[in-house]
Amino acid sequence: MPGTDEIAAAVDAYIERFSAGDRDGWLALWAPDAIMEDPVGTPVMSGHEAIGAFFDQSRELADDVRLVRTGPIRVAGTEAAFPMQARPTFGGAELVVDIIDTMRFDDQARIVAMRAYWDPTTMRPAED
Amino acid sequence: MPGTDEIAAAVDAYIERFSAGDRDGWLALWAPDAIMEDPVGTPVMSGHEAIGAFFDQSRELADDVRLVRTGPIRVAGTEAAFPMQARPTFGGAELVVDIIDTMRFDDQARIVAMRAYWDPTTMRPAED
Repeated sequence: MPGTDEIAAAVDAYIERFSAGDRDGWLALWAPDAIMEDPVGTPVMSGHEAIGAFFDQSRELADDVRLVRTGPIRVAGTEAAFPMQARPTFGGAELVVDIIDTMRFDDQARIVAMRAYWDPTTMRPAED
Repeated sequence: MPGTDEIAAAVDAYIERFSAGDRDGWLALWAPDAIMEDPVGTPVMSGHEAIGAFFDQSRELADDVRLVRTGPIRVAGTEAAFPMQARPTFGGAELVVDIIDTMRFDDQARIVAMRAYWDPTTMRPAED
């Protein structure tokens, strides 16, 4: 069973590597047969190829995207949830949308399942 | 399918009625066959009787308990996630612990499944 500190470190690495555009480092945080549902209610994707394609698509949509954690990571057993914002930039203008991710981890603290709760219609100009 | 506004209203009613000790009003927010896992990783409880017993136990442990939402409700399809704090009072001293709840709703915007992400070891004296 992964420790609380390992899970928290994986979450922060997830945010940092995504924001840095570190595709290989970010993908290494996922178990090979991991599943992802982003946003919740859309079809589940499975495996590194599909999840890597999601990474590419997320980053190609905007000039840049950064993730910012906005509160503590809540760890419960082998799972975690945390609040964050995605902040994509389009033509010099930064937008912002609120997200909560939930993740389940394996014994090596790799993500085996992720669900992202957010509503695309709530994206708005960043004012800070 | 419940609307975003209905889901958000149910979440805020959940927080308000729990904090007010309104057992009947709080239980009415749950579908009869709802399931609850609180905290994540512990056995799942099912139905109004078990969920009502959870309410009683949660409130009997402390002199008082209030829930405070600490960020926006993220609605995704028929589900939602939101960050909050539970603030129980024991002998005049208020403690605080960070929680994220995820919920799925039925067509009447009643909760059919809830999972609460938190770690009891992170409870601490409230300093604000």
